[in-house]
Amino acid sequence: MTACRVGGQSASVAPLERAMAMADNRTRVDANKLTEFSVRSLAKLGMPDDDARMMATMLVACDLRGVESHGVAHLRMFYIRRARQGFINLNPNIKTVAEAPATATIDGDNGFGFIVGRHAMKDALARASETSVGMVTVRNSTHFGAAAYYAMMALDKDMIGITMTNCVASVTAPGSSRPAVGTNPIAVAAPAGKKPPFVLDMATSAAAGGKLAIARRQGQPYPEGWLIDGEGRPVTDSANHRPPGGGLVPLGGIPVTGAYKGFGLALVVDILAGILSGSAASILHNPPPEQRGNYSDHFFGALDIGCFTPVDAFKQSMDDMIDALEALPTVHGTDRVTVPGHYEAEIVAERKVNGIPLDDDVIKDLKTLSEEMGIPFDIRLS
Amino acid sequence: MTACRVGGQSASVAPLERAMAMADNRTRVDANKLTEFSVRSLAKLGMPDDDARMMATMLVACDLRGVESHGVAHLRMFYIRRARQGFINLNPNIKTVAEAPATATIDGDNGFGFIVGRHAMKDALARASETSVGMVTVRNSTHFGAAAYYAMMALDKDMIGITMTNCVASVTAPGSSRPAVGTNPIAVAAPAGKKPPFVLDMATSAAAGGKLAIARRQGQPYPEGWLIDGEGRPVTDSANHRPPGGGLVPLGGIPVTGAYKGFGLALVVDILAGILSGSAASILHNPPPEQRGNYSDHFFGALDIGCFTPVDAFKQSMDDMIDALEALPTVHGTDRVTVPGHYEAEIVAERKVNGIPLDDDVIKDLKTLSEEMGIPFDIRLS
Repeated sequence: MTACRVGGQSASVAPLERAMAMADNRTRVDANKLTEFSVRSLAKLGMPDDDARMMATMLVACDLRGVESHGVAHLRMFYIRRARQGFINLNPNIKTVAEAPATATIDGDNGFGFIVGRHAMKDALARASETSVGMVTVRNSTHFGAAAYYAMMALDKDMIGITMTNCVASVTAPGSSRPAVGTNPIAVAAPAGKKPPFVLDMATSAAAGGKLAIARRQGQPYPEGWLIDGEGRPVTDSANHRPPGGGLVPLGGIPVTGAYKGFGLALVVDILAGILSGSAASILHNPPPEQRGNYSDHFFGALDIGCFTPVDAFKQSMDDMIDALEALPTVHGTDRVTVPGHYEAEIVAERKVNGIPLDDDVIKDLKTLSEEMGIPFDIRLS
Repeated sequence: MTACRVGGQSASVAPLERAMAMADNRTRVDANKLTEFSVRSLAKLGMPDDDARMMATMLVACDLRGVESHGVAHLRMFYIRRARQGFINLNPNIKTVAEAPATATIDGDNGFGFIVGRHAMKDALARASETSVGMVTVRNSTHFGAAAYYAMMALDKDMIGITMTNCVASVTAPGSSRPAVGTNPIAVAAPAGKKPPFVLDMATSAAAGGKLAIARRQGQPYPEGWLIDGEGRPVTDSANHRPPGGGLVPLGGIPVTGAYKGFGLALVVDILAGILSGSAASILHNPPPEQRGNYSDHFFGALDIGCFTPVDAFKQSMDDMIDALEALPTVHGTDRVTVPGHYEAEIVAERKVNGIPLDDDVIKDLKTLSEEMGIPFDIRLS
């Protein structure tokens, strides 16, 4: 599995996944123990202790939200493996290479994207505290997990958070069948009052790589509109996925239903994260095959709500919008209209009580990691 | 036609429209004369001369770009009609109601969106000149034409421009068949070097209202994926469009191909333009029927490229990306991959030479306007 497929998928949970997550029969593990195990693994790998704790906490936060594609499932086989291969700088010298009152350009020195990204989002938040807004672009970083995490760092500061990241090209342009842009996700988080916050986290492709991986694992065909082959024909045979020359379909599908929009949004991410940072657009990143999916450029934004409008009024208006949306009549057996981020909030509440369900394969993989690292393995529910 | 359908449509030109625009057999008119005629009409209506010139120039700029849905076709029957009905304040007292170094909240006092929007984007650009970035949210405005115009104001200042606007709810949420959000377009413009600038301007619905209007005029059925009825079934009969209870489909179509993404993006626009400005989300705006589509809240952003990275390097990197995209092999008879904004740039070049083609109905409508206003009518090519 390439990193981009890991990173490219939408880090939000669709209703089906939500239903599966809530009625989950898999082995449940203890979130705190899982975090401590991950901290020790990453420290043993060679990360500074504080960084190891930060990254472990961020990974487990994804599992708590039901965004398992960005959680501990990838700790060993993706993140630690890349580091062991020498593709990650475990002690990066993260540098601000340009700055102005409200903006900065940061060089991540090829560190783990989690460490680089958190540093950069904190910088954006600090600038927003000073000037009302902070916009930070980042080059020379690597896969940073779920984009939502960084946007959500704005919430308890009563700010709106924005995250974008590019990654290796895997999504086709309208009228072509070759990879032109990364899945280039966009995340936006905004606080509400009594309601959970709004948290959108979306790949700019129709379906994220992780969705294809799930279909493959389950032996299900891909729906038309996810993947095309080298001649531009839909690929639905998931057993024989991603034929040479083809690629993912941009959000919008075909031109008549808005493919230029998904493609255009992916280019916006390439411009703000890749080009503005002094790196490059996805299509011009040509890492060697073993490093595919490793590189990533990011963009972070923070807007201080209180500088625009009273925070209480903003939150009340958010609640009013959410109430109105949830009160809409539904069709097709849908139980209710759901605002982005609210399924995930429900999953967090449930998993904090009942623990995090993990696939047997993931537990086995973590056990292998414990043996490789020589650290005790206990993630059972207390 | 409601204003929102006018405003909601994507103000960018798809390949089919481009082909039609380039091989256009309609009567051609002179861009300068068309501008002067529009200036005089708007001044006669009661706008200050400078404002009339500004708005006329912006309308004709849309016609020059081939974005006719946002041009002089709507001068009389939409904009002037609304003003005559008393729904527009021709001498608005545009006020900054909150500000910080990089941000502002502006009240448009119910002026024409063109005047309010240009004022607000200039404010964002000025703040970006000072602090590196400017973010301005606007309430109490009205339909402002094509979102791209404002984003493009950043280009000659070597900045990246961002525009968003909400409008009356006409797009459904996934799982519902009732209007939940406006078509809420997003525009982003970024300069290139030798290549034309990148200009994305997209409704967050699958198809914009203007696309439906074209299908209706031409007696063509709607493709599936544009409109649903009150039971959530696709509507393809364009003669009997927009049945009660139904609405437009969000970008992404159905949940499996990303409907939550288009819906989520529309909510981002509602949050940044509607809620952050102290107005409200689309779903809570309930103007009386005769004012539907009149109201609009906006959001403008500007990022000063030179604060992040050298401007020359940025432009070279943009050109490199565009070259790489244009060099991609194509399928389905597509002649080349096209970057958002480049079709429009070609149309501008052609129309500057050959004049602006207008529908006979539009010419007739402008003639009626000349009689109503008692001003001479001469828009012939010189």
